[in-house]
Amino acid sequence: MKLTILGCGSASPTSKRNPTSQHLAIQERCFLIDCGEGTQVQLRKHRLRIQKINHIFISHLHGDHFFGLIGLISTYHLLGRTTDLYIYGPSDLKQIIHTSLNATKTYLRYNLHFITLNFDNETLIYEDKRLLVYSFPMKHSIQSCGFLFKEKPKLRKINRKAVDSFNIPVYQLNNIKEGADYIDDSGLIIANKTLTFDPDPSQSYAYCSDTAYYPNICKTIRGVSCLYHESTFINSDENLAKKTKHSTSEQAALIAKEAEVGQLILGHYSARYTNLETLLNEARLVFNKTILGEDGLTITL
Amino acid sequence: MKLTILGCGSASPTSKRNPTSQHLAIQERCFLIDCGEGTQVQLRKHRLRIQKINHIFISHLHGDHFFGLIGLISTYHLLGRTTDLYIYGPSDLKQIIHTSLNATKTYLRYNLHFITLNFDNETLIYEDKRLLVYSFPMKHSIQSCGFLFKEKPKLRKINRKAVDSFNIPVYQLNNIKEGADYIDDSGLIIANKTLTFDPDPSQSYAYCSDTAYYPNICKTIRGVSCLYHESTFINSDENLAKKTKHSTSEQAALIAKEAEVGQLILGHYSARYTNLETLLNEARLVFNKTILGEDGLTITL
Repeated sequence: MKLTILGCGSASPTSKRNPTSQHLAIQERCFLIDCGEGTQVQLRKHRLRIQKINHIFISHLHGDHFFGLIGLISTYHLLGRTTDLYIYGPSDLKQIIHTSLNATKTYLRYNLHFITLNFDNETLIYEDKRLLVYSFPMKHSIQSCGFLFKEKPKLRKINRKAVDSFNIPVYQLNNIKEGADYIDDSGLIIANKTLTFDPDPSQSYAYCSDTAYYPNICKTIRGVSCLYHESTFINSDENLAKKTKHSTSEQAALIAKEAEVGQLILGHYSARYTNLETLLNEARLVFNKTILGEDGLTITL
Repeated sequence: MKLTILGCGSASPTSKRNPTSQHLAIQERCFLIDCGEGTQVQLRKHRLRIQKINHIFISHLHGDHFFGLIGLISTYHLLGRTTDLYIYGPSDLKQIIHTSLNATKTYLRYNLHFITLNFDNETLIYEDKRLLVYSFPMKHSIQSCGFLFKEKPKLRKINRKAVDSFNIPVYQLNNIKEGADYIDDSGLIIANKTLTFDPDPSQSYAYCSDTAYYPNICKTIRGVSCLYHESTFINSDENLAKKTKHSTSEQAALIAKEAEVGQLILGHYSARYTNLETLLNEARLVFNKTILGEDGLTITL
């Protein structure tokens, strides 16, 4: 899993921080989470191949999380894309995009699929043989969903020496990677454990932005390798967090601690802070494995 | 008049060139011409005061000319704007913006006025005591308007020494600036020429993007101090210009020459060109007073 943070700002973009967007690469799949204005340029700046993205997740309909979507959709069209694109978001998103496409007389050469998010319950919204993606409701001034990306258990790793010494035929290797024992022509059972090493651990990533402090999400994100949780405000601005249904960095850390996550990334900083040290320090007092997200930060899990 | 080019790219933004937008300051008034994705960040980068913009002109409904508008409108709202904002553009623009505002439950604290452009005839769309703005039809794959900004004749400049020597009362100065003679108490006429110097020359600026080669516009833009004309392609790609209803830089120069403008600024370059020298050279062979527009270029007229 490789996460690239494209934008860490909040409502209004500044010359230093872009609005929210993240690129997540998991075992050859590329996902985009939120798509604030300027996302397509950020993707290019960080040399991420935009055409490899087939699934885009939009958490909620505040502009700093989706105003870049129409531009990206149009650019795909101009670049001759033919691959289907799947967009997971609130139901009104479809109308917004189609109003623009119709007015600009853009007749896409590729299919655009809209999948409406469920804002009431945790929902499996994507699955393939290696990965699961869930949406789950958060608490914000409008309906907002977090996203959980969860690798399925990985294949066991072949012990090359052992496999060679037992003369295991190549066509059996996939079964063995999946955990099967090997039975040779004489009926001898060679235990899978003898032939393989444990698989790499499966990683998971949870994205929570925008949301007020909302411990209900902990059951969903429990034990994730990495959590990105919005931290718009410092403690002394907690009244603003409450009013706007955002979180302080301390509240983000409380969630990280309660959910026992591997690490916490902060982000979605209010434009009023030029120095982010207070945000970081206040979070680390609660949960030490916290880092500051920043535009262009790449993390490999 | 001070023109700042915020974006010089064409259809799809790159990490080096932003899509189209320009900021034009004329005698304390600030105008925005087109508003591609990322315009609000460009305004901030170039330290232009975004709240001073009260009039935005959108030439046509291709995304690279207006996808940044909804973001700017939202940011104005978040910053607490209360001043009316006037948007001149194609009729569908209103629906696009309102669809987004409704879906994001944004109830603006300021009034948004949409003025629909006339794509059939040259039209006076803005006038105040110092300035006129006209829209005029161009020729593109969809309806597209150019804009002409024209200062009215400026006030004559007071000759301080002469005014003092004739003991002219202060309340008469405005009349004199406007060209009146002065008649003193004894009935003596002092000619305006004695009391004033000639005014600064009035400037004018024409914006033509996007358009195919379309000499019809010359009658409208004749003699302007400065012309910005799109030049998407070089001569050897003229077939592409024809197909997409854009112009080559040579065609832009032919317009500049025929309309006898003061200077020509090129822009709206196809992303295929990293080096723009050919565009410039081909234009200069026809019209020598040509410069390359670029993101961040500021020109004072």
